[in-house]
Amino acid sequence: MTTGFEHETLGQRVRFTRDGAAEGVAAEVSHLGAERVMVIASGAGEALAARVTADIPVVLVHDDVVMHVPVEVADRAREAAESSGADALVCLGGGSTTGLAKAVALTTGLPIVAVPTTYAGSEATNVWGLTEDAVKTTGVDARVLPRAIVYDASLTTSLPVDLSVASGLNALAHCVDSMWAPRSDPIDRALAEEGIRALGGALPRVVDAPGDLAGRERMLYGAYLAAVAFSSAGSGLHHKICHVLGGRYGLPHAQTHAVVLPHVLALNAPRSPEAEARISRALGSDSALAGLQELRDRIDAPTSLRDFGLREEQLADAASAVLPAVPPSNPVTLSTDDLERLLRRAWEGADPR
Amino acid sequence: MTTGFEHETLGQRVRFTRDGAAEGVAAEVSHLGAERVMVIASGAGEALAARVTADIPVVLVHDDVVMHVPVEVADRAREAAESSGADALVCLGGGSTTGLAKAVALTTGLPIVAVPTTYAGSEATNVWGLTEDAVKTTGVDARVLPRAIVYDASLTTSLPVDLSVASGLNALAHCVDSMWAPRSDPIDRALAEEGIRALGGALPRVVDAPGDLAGRERMLYGAYLAAVAFSSAGSGLHHKICHVLGGRYGLPHAQTHAVVLPHVLALNAPRSPEAEARISRALGSDSALAGLQELRDRIDAPTSLRDFGLREEQLADAASAVLPAVPPSNPVTLSTDDLERLLRRAWEGADPR
Repeated sequence: MTTGFEHETLGQRVRFTRDGAAEGVAAEVSHLGAERVMVIASGAGEALAARVTADIPVVLVHDDVVMHVPVEVADRAREAAESSGADALVCLGGGSTTGLAKAVALTTGLPIVAVPTTYAGSEATNVWGLTEDAVKTTGVDARVLPRAIVYDASLTTSLPVDLSVASGLNALAHCVDSMWAPRSDPIDRALAEEGIRALGGALPRVVDAPGDLAGRERMLYGAYLAAVAFSSAGSGLHHKICHVLGGRYGLPHAQTHAVVLPHVLALNAPRSPEAEARISRALGSDSALAGLQELRDRIDAPTSLRDFGLREEQLADAASAVLPAVPPSNPVTLSTDDLERLLRRAWEGADPR
Repeated sequence: MTTGFEHETLGQRVRFTRDGAAEGVAAEVSHLGAERVMVIASGAGEALAARVTADIPVVLVHDDVVMHVPVEVADRAREAAESSGADALVCLGGGSTTGLAKAVALTTGLPIVAVPTTYAGSEATNVWGLTEDAVKTTGVDARVLPRAIVYDASLTTSLPVDLSVASGLNALAHCVDSMWAPRSDPIDRALAEEGIRALGGALPRVVDAPGDLAGRERMLYGAYLAAVAFSSAGSGLHHKICHVLGGRYGLPHAQTHAVVLPHVLALNAPRSPEAEARISRALGSDSALAGLQELRDRIDAPTSLRDFGLREEQLADAASAVLPAVPPSNPVTLSTDDLERLLRRAWEGADPR
């Protein structure tokens, strides 16, 4: 364990239920003492939202949800909240829906009950994000942390398998990167270990039996822990690399994460005995990397960045762009050459071992 | 994982520091915006308290601390807090000192910064206790949860080895019992597993080298996790048994816990695969019970209840008294005969295997 750390545990109520989302939401709304609820759900989620909010006093259903929370979308939702006299928010959906509820909470102080339908994890963090003129601003504020989360695996079974796997691997990357991120502490790493254990067990189950509620529930549990750990620990090397690949060359988020993760693990694990022990234990494997690769093979995860549009001549530029972002907490010190070598192997689809 | 659970994560800031308690306390007091601090520390802790509170605005040092927080002691502390105009409490000491700060916070709402010097764990819970006419009343209230904890292993090195071991084994019992306690959920069990890992590593180190700060720090970390898990999960079979043995026959708290734990584990672990997996993994052993016994041998833990004053003819009475308290969540259903058999083995010092 590290000598000296600070950890802030965020207070939040969490419910896991199967087919009990309506009762769970009603209990949490009543716990808040709320009597005028604004429901936020995108068009696709409205039927689910009607079911889940059947037992609470709804004054408004707001379905004007847009990815990355554009400021004008946030402003419309805030005005709707104010003119409706809402005293609480219930959001049902993925990261964009939760994000819009957070934008409303940020200026109004209204408490949120979140009902997630994906494995994005935003419901477990105090991080908000808003986009203006194509620039995304993020921040941390206690007001945006949902007061309660209601997880119901039956709400996630309609999420297609490929999206579920991408989202689950993204959560797995949150856990792995939490092992060496800038603010990583033993509590984060213990929660991340438990998250890896849950996700490692759940991903193959969701692939084999997408309608199996037990598998979906373990995915939600793992994604929740991943978000708790990652929001406390911050972005490590893996997320810094993926941020450059996504922002600079437009590579797709989920696939980029899936390809890059084993290469970062292969680099860092030998120099981080605690991460090696935790990840291998969580995956029930002799080594962290072997465990991750078995899991990736099992769910047929992508292996090459060149399949997603990265060009060979961009590798050197990418390495230079990543270098200044490498966190000082990374267990291995890196040069541009080291980064280019890592990126080339990920680009080729080479075995990370 | 259980299908369906509710978990409340309590929001709290936690710092681990070595020799940095004064800076840590000053940072947390300043974070609260407090300007008039009442310090609570028993006579023995006053020198430490002077050191640790050197950098904060102290208006009063209160040293009138009594075990189990008698109501009249709480009333005196509350009056002192009010007449001093304090806007925050800093408590330094063990469970009794933290308990007195909680009693003051319960009626005044003053925020607490706790600086623990033992492994009692009260600083991580929202549970308060008060004693009136020899009857202890406990309750749960958000106001009594310390806003911040500052752990500094250098403050615990004066705790004698035998007390440290007893306190550490008590924390270990909190973790083990959290595996099957009435409100136990996967989050509690994951934190308890991490607590067992820390305590299992720390106990032999503290015995071998009582002044070693790394060992003391792992004990504090394990005791903190034990308290977080146990206060969420509630009392399981082990604590119900120990409560009867302590309350009815006056057996010493720590020794009773140390003797009874392996017998409860031997009974429950075969019927709780998750507990078996988590505890054996945390202790790095092939089985949970073997791991616990190796640890107990290593630190020379007591083995027989008869060594601590329990008489053979009390075993049947004790079994009858425990029966109605057995939680329905216990993985094994028990008769009075089962309980008497368990107690007899613990009384004799028989091998629990």
